[in-house]
Amino acid sequence: MRTPTSVGVFRIHSGLDYHANAMDMSRTDSIHMDPEEFRKHGHAMIDFIAEYLGREPKRPVRSEVEPGFVRSRLPEHPPEAGEPFESVMKDVREIIMPGITHWQSPDFFAYFPANNSEPSILGELLSAGLGVQGMLWSTSPACTELETHVLDWLVRMKGLPERYLSSGSGGGVIQDTASSATLCALIAARERTDSFESGSSGVNQADSSMITYCSSQAHSSVEKAVRIAGLGTDNLRIIDVDGDYAMDVEHLKRVIKDDIDAGRRPCMVVAVSGTTSSNAFDPIDRIATLCREHGIWLHVDAAMSGTAMLCPEHRHLFDGVEHADSYCFNPHKWMFTNFDCNCFWVADRSDLVKSLSILPEYLRNSATESGRVIDYRDWQIPLGRRFRALKLWFVIRHYGVNGLQELVRGHIDLTAEFARWIEEDDRFQLAAPAPLNLVCFRHVEGDEFNERLLEKLNHEGEMYLSHTRLDDRYTLRMSIGQSRVERSNVERAWSNIRRVASDPGDT
Amino acid sequence: MRTPTSVGVFRIHSGLDYHANAMDMSRTDSIHMDPEEFRKHGHAMIDFIAEYLGREPKRPVRSEVEPGFVRSRLPEHPPEAGEPFESVMKDVREIIMPGITHWQSPDFFAYFPANNSEPSILGELLSAGLGVQGMLWSTSPACTELETHVLDWLVRMKGLPERYLSSGSGGGVIQDTASSATLCALIAARERTDSFESGSSGVNQADSSMITYCSSQAHSSVEKAVRIAGLGTDNLRIIDVDGDYAMDVEHLKRVIKDDIDAGRRPCMVVAVSGTTSSNAFDPIDRIATLCREHGIWLHVDAAMSGTAMLCPEHRHLFDGVEHADSYCFNPHKWMFTNFDCNCFWVADRSDLVKSLSILPEYLRNSATESGRVIDYRDWQIPLGRRFRALKLWFVIRHYGVNGLQELVRGHIDLTAEFARWIEEDDRFQLAAPAPLNLVCFRHVEGDEFNERLLEKLNHEGEMYLSHTRLDDRYTLRMSIGQSRVERSNVERAWSNIRRVASDPGDT
Repeated sequence: MRTPTSVGVFRIHSGLDYHANAMDMSRTDSIHMDPEEFRKHGHAMIDFIAEYLGREPKRPVRSEVEPGFVRSRLPEHPPEAGEPFESVMKDVREIIMPGITHWQSPDFFAYFPANNSEPSILGELLSAGLGVQGMLWSTSPACTELETHVLDWLVRMKGLPERYLSSGSGGGVIQDTASSATLCALIAARERTDSFESGSSGVNQADSSMITYCSSQAHSSVEKAVRIAGLGTDNLRIIDVDGDYAMDVEHLKRVIKDDIDAGRRPCMVVAVSGTTSSNAFDPIDRIATLCREHGIWLHVDAAMSGTAMLCPEHRHLFDGVEHADSYCFNPHKWMFTNFDCNCFWVADRSDLVKSLSILPEYLRNSATESGRVIDYRDWQIPLGRRFRALKLWFVIRHYGVNGLQELVRGHIDLTAEFARWIEEDDRFQLAAPAPLNLVCFRHVEGDEFNERLLEKLNHEGEMYLSHTRLDDRYTLRMSIGQSRVERSNVERAWSNIRRVASDPGDT
Repeated sequence: MRTPTSVGVFRIHSGLDYHANAMDMSRTDSIHMDPEEFRKHGHAMIDFIAEYLGREPKRPVRSEVEPGFVRSRLPEHPPEAGEPFESVMKDVREIIMPGITHWQSPDFFAYFPANNSEPSILGELLSAGLGVQGMLWSTSPACTELETHVLDWLVRMKGLPERYLSSGSGGGVIQDTASSATLCALIAARERTDSFESGSSGVNQADSSMITYCSSQAHSSVEKAVRIAGLGTDNLRIIDVDGDYAMDVEHLKRVIKDDIDAGRRPCMVVAVSGTTSSNAFDPIDRIATLCREHGIWLHVDAAMSGTAMLCPEHRHLFDGVEHADSYCFNPHKWMFTNFDCNCFWVADRSDLVKSLSILPEYLRNSATESGRVIDYRDWQIPLGRRFRALKLWFVIRHYGVNGLQELVRGHIDLTAEFARWIEEDDRFQLAAPAPLNLVCFRHVEGDEFNERLLEKLNHEGEMYLSHTRLDDRYTLRMSIGQSRVERSNVERAWSNIRRVASDPGDT
């Protein structure tokens, strides 16, 4: 028997004297951060985050640093010897923080909410600490089973159809983003359309090409998925929208007919429930009828707004989702769960799994072969996966269904109120309906004025708004869904908007 | 001016009396976890992780629960009212932990190291707390700039070619996994091969099809990428390997020639530096010569073993990487960084960005238009991204280059020692060279015996090994790279292997 020594994992630090700077001198032989140090720095990090998420305003909301600000303050070369954690945190405060745009500020109204919560942060922390790899059921059963369970819970919480349950023909899985969900749906749709020829022989868009459909307001990820999947953007049909920026189903119908008449094969329609640009809702029910008639895969992208289905009174916006082949929404947008966490369901998991399944010998195991378990590796683009279900479970248990409903309703009420203020002010007008948590509006003075208004507001730093174009007109977007937004934040924003509109300056 | 009230974000809890169970009663009106509660539960979570990563053995290393164990202990329906965090943590201990396979145990020798560290966990925690969205430079400049900076550091730390620096024609980006890196490389290669026709017109594999090459030992993600990208697995050429399981370049040469003669278009070769199955190294240099000759994209997948490049004495294994078009490795495998964190470099970023770039109006901004910034959205499959560079930066600063080298060298020394023990024992034989941190070996008694040996060892729970097949023979894999593995763990494993080999039982 050899004497146990500690090859490679302990050492006396050479070079910079790291531990001489640390407060705990009890274990100076460890190259790793020892448990006491970890506790100390971990508690301090928790306190740092508690303070960050606290009531003190974070200004400017949009980071105003110039390109290169952060890099110019970092050393050109990495350290040869390890450094005290205190030095790292000093640089976080002095170099990183000025370059942070405060997505978690209650004065952040840009893009979309990326709302977060303490239970979610703790779930992410636990996931990082356990450090399991959930590619297979067998590589950490709890990682897979909790995910399946929570996604089944969400089916019921959102009133989604029974066939999305894992006990039915379908099931849910956590993806990083809705972009990946759309790509997975498109791959499955492509294979179903093509009798799984594309996966083996390769796509052949020269003959009877496969066509994807979405409205002009759908997310850019549809175009990206079509490119990645080898279908080509020429085979993406951009369908017109009506006055409310929802898909014009009559146009869709005509385009599908033209494609079929020309010998092309309709493959997938992406219906959007809550477009990024203006929060428009495509009429899923009528789109689903068309899809059923022609055997087209219907994917519903509710990334932005799917959280509203937690509230029965808002489910009418999603009517028809029960006929979709796949559906996704982002808890990392509006359900208090930190990025990344997209929930994606399919009505029939076999198409998806068959499209993405590959089993090399080194991953074979008896659980997989028994057919009694889910291996989520076959439900996504990557092989590896972390334990993301923890944070989702923590969020649902901390808030409960009632708590989540109450928060979402609060955001929707604030949004409705802001929309009324816009309507009541002659200088402003609504640019689109505001059914949930986004108000698109503009000042009557026209594009150049609105652009200056936006830039001045953002530059002042008390709030952050973004923009879009609707009907080719520059349009301001006020997204109200941050975890800690209160009426006072929205009121102050409106007061700032009116003030700056009275004197938008020259730039 | 309206009176600020707190619509939607505060309430008196109804239903289950949540806060009555909490210790801090000072803010019972908050539906969110208030700062004091967060500090309390956060500190407790840090302590939980400190204990989990501590010296107490975690048994069984491989979770031994039956399918359904976790789900059967969870309630069928989600809670209507919020629950105390203590209840959640009770369930973590009682329901989740038995279903955890302990990837962070120093007795985990299965698959590959997914090693982790305290600085990395703190980086992930900070990333979750800041909750920024790094899709564009402008959505949080620090998120992009730190990533670029750290990936430039790594170019130097690993002796990679200058053109991988962001200041050159290339640059690096963090992907979730090597699977996604391979897919991104393949999309760029496909577009370059096809003059960007595939992205617009769609792939047409019926004529002069585009061909991808990898050895029989390459990772399954190559086949998956070929499917996803629409190239089809029929157009993936599986190249023979030599006696050491490295790609047979003469075979590659013949197959490329046959394809060219038949009017097909070689598109990409994936060379693997450290195969998953046996840690074989394809001869990049000779492959690169062939690729240059025919204008084929060369992607080097060093997911498993790229960390070894931190040590100059091991860089010879990667000779020729300076000629690759793209290269990736996984800090989340062997560089003490928790999943997910794959580092991916391209020699010429323009092909990649052109292949994946889409810019809708709502993401337009002056920084992007100035051309002075990187928008990593165009370097990856998804749109959104979290601040993963923080953990990588924390790891490099905590350990320093010297510390990382020392740990890696320790693993390599332990592996060499274990390989020697195998060689010295007549009952066992090495099944492949063991250049770094993986030993493939088998008992001389044959497949069925080895299978029983593995299962008994894993079932006992003191260690966890996995297997592969080499030359169609069942082969045990001993992967030595966990953060806290010491000589004593490897010695105990060897002692267990010998004991069980003397009496492997029946099943």
